[in-house]
Amino acid sequence: MEFNESYFAKHMAPISGSAIRDIFKLLGKPGMISFAGGNPSNAALEPDVIAPIAQEVISTIGAPILQYGATEGFIPLRESIQRYLLDSGVPCEESQVLPTAGSTQGMDLLLKALIDPGDVVLVEDPTFLGALQTISTYNAKIVAVPSDENGILPDELEKAMKQYKPKLAYIIPTFQNPTGTTLSVERRRRVAELAAKYGVLVAEDDPYHDLRYEGETLPTIKSFDKEGWIVYLASFSKIISPGMRVGAMVVSFPALLRKCVIGKQSSDLHNPLITQAIVDAYLRKGLLKEHVKRILVGYKKQLETMISGFESFPEGTKLTKPQGGLFVWAELPENINTTALLQKAVDNGVAYVPGTHFYPNGGHHNTIRLNFSNSPEDKIVIGMEKLAKVLKENN
Amino acid sequence: MEFNESYFAKHMAPISGSAIRDIFKLLGKPGMISFAGGNPSNAALEPDVIAPIAQEVISTIGAPILQYGATEGFIPLRESIQRYLLDSGVPCEESQVLPTAGSTQGMDLLLKALIDPGDVVLVEDPTFLGALQTISTYNAKIVAVPSDENGILPDELEKAMKQYKPKLAYIIPTFQNPTGTTLSVERRRRVAELAAKYGVLVAEDDPYHDLRYEGETLPTIKSFDKEGWIVYLASFSKIISPGMRVGAMVVSFPALLRKCVIGKQSSDLHNPLITQAIVDAYLRKGLLKEHVKRILVGYKKQLETMISGFESFPEGTKLTKPQGGLFVWAELPENINTTALLQKAVDNGVAYVPGTHFYPNGGHHNTIRLNFSNSPEDKIVIGMEKLAKVLKENN
Repeated sequence: MEFNESYFAKHMAPISGSAIRDIFKLLGKPGMISFAGGNPSNAALEPDVIAPIAQEVISTIGAPILQYGATEGFIPLRESIQRYLLDSGVPCEESQVLPTAGSTQGMDLLLKALIDPGDVVLVEDPTFLGALQTISTYNAKIVAVPSDENGILPDELEKAMKQYKPKLAYIIPTFQNPTGTTLSVERRRRVAELAAKYGVLVAEDDPYHDLRYEGETLPTIKSFDKEGWIVYLASFSKIISPGMRVGAMVVSFPALLRKCVIGKQSSDLHNPLITQAIVDAYLRKGLLKEHVKRILVGYKKQLETMISGFESFPEGTKLTKPQGGLFVWAELPENINTTALLQKAVDNGVAYVPGTHFYPNGGHHNTIRLNFSNSPEDKIVIGMEKLAKVLKENN
Repeated sequence: MEFNESYFAKHMAPISGSAIRDIFKLLGKPGMISFAGGNPSNAALEPDVIAPIAQEVISTIGAPILQYGATEGFIPLRESIQRYLLDSGVPCEESQVLPTAGSTQGMDLLLKALIDPGDVVLVEDPTFLGALQTISTYNAKIVAVPSDENGILPDELEKAMKQYKPKLAYIIPTFQNPTGTTLSVERRRRVAELAAKYGVLVAEDDPYHDLRYEGETLPTIKSFDKEGWIVYLASFSKIISPGMRVGAMVVSFPALLRKCVIGKQSSDLHNPLITQAIVDAYLRKGLLKEHVKRILVGYKKQLETMISGFESFPEGTKLTKPQGGLFVWAELPENINTTALLQKAVDNGVAYVPGTHFYPNGGHHNTIRLNFSNSPEDKIVIGMEKLAKVLKENN
């Protein structure tokens, strides 16, 4: 017998992997400046702080930290995450907090709990391509809801809820990936109301919540949630460490939380206890606030440097200047195809993600997503010059 | 609107969670002796060894250990796992090794890659209940293939392969969970041949491979695999630490491995780098062999103590004396219902897993699985006395 494509499940057959992660493979070249990916700055990571904490939690907790743990999570961590969430304007009980392997797993567990093949999932247009891939693995029908510079359009969302009667919508309200836009307060309230009115669960994915460089923090969608339709997805990837894979989901409906726990039990049993205990100790020691304050200073400068770099971009470029997060999004003149130009840019030592990958229905080949957090300012200056040159040569 | 059961995906609706993990909740009572679960002994865990290794790898690797990692795994770990596998009689290339969150995730990723709702998955009868649950989350049809004291019956396996034309079978060849039986060499060869003949992928789940207290190590099924139909699932849960959630899958077909990587990318992006680096350093330092040698001494005594405890069990009890692993399995007189007696046993301070949970089609209410690794010898003596008393009173 021969192994071939016919063995693959229907939902997996068409999926060839995240474009971003394939771009990563182009980045090994020495001197490459990468505006692709969504990595925090290496300077924003604290191995010198985390190393002694790791030693401390393992020594203090002893053998139980190496044993099997509960799928529901390391209890002290659930408590410290709850405290962190209450500080972030996310009303929740400790019993509603489920630690996950990043917010990616939170979305995966929701999909596993809810989605049968062919079910509709509503998303913003454009949205995070990793989420699009995760949704695809459940063979869901993805329906893109139009957004503008203030985020998803509530009237369009309502129309889609009426038309498709979906179980689930996925929204990144704050410094959205990829566009950097932030959903206005009024729209947040509307989203929560629509979720309740039409009985649609809304995954509020909020990994950039703390990365605000200007303006006031807005209330979460979850803060307007009276019945429990909003599932809040938190992540420590952008503020402590992505490599530790610690995030959490807040699920208000006990029966839904239970299904998410069962889904996690079936896929990885539980998050490693060591990484859970490290994040718990980090939060308990009160290290997060000062750390975030410090990294915001650097990220703000990097963002401003990148924005300045747009001055030499082709005329007609429209960029979204975000108030926070890790990305700048731009619409280039219509004749520029960022997908086609990627290889040329990489050959010139600079990488990015073509915007088309974030659109469920493709197209929009003149859009581009640039990450500024993972490059120091001097590299941002050089990278933007290189990129401007490639774009202009092909305009 | 009201949230209710109708929201759940068809595959999740009927699943209420692992019986074992629910039994765990009964175990909080002080003084409880638990023969449930499959935890290694606390004495077999080495927080004093792991703590400085954790500190060391984080300090040495620095910021990159806290960054995003590749879904394909931490490269040094893939290399050390390959070396470990070659030592264990698992022929493989480094590029075929995918680190997973325990062997549970290996099975989950295989199912995700292959299984459409209604597809048949073959399993041993009885088999690991955690695997049964994971298979259920893909809405597969589980077909149980009869086994005897030498493991799964190849003729029955062939019959099932012919009849159902499945894509996947799941086999625990060594010190099987729950029965403790080991698949004979001749049958291992047959399983590999049948897999190739009928084009069925076989997941060889081998977490107890190193835990042999007597007899000779047998060649893996994978060692008889000429074409690539055997997917080997390795785990460090029973020999280093379950709480770190580090295992690996060996996938020979590149296209299948790629789908598993995509499945992992969509669910947790990658294993935490810290735990991967700890296991890597542990293996590189050559600590595993001595450690395993040491824990075998203790486990062997615990197993013998438990076997002795059966002397006071009701007449007619048939027990499987395993040559390794973590479990003793017994068939009690037919009138004893271990499911019905569990609460009474727990009230008397001793817990176990009723054997029925391991049978895809239920029944076999007179069977019982007892774990000996997680209780010191004196507790095993007392626990077996308590259990014998409960059983006899209800015989």
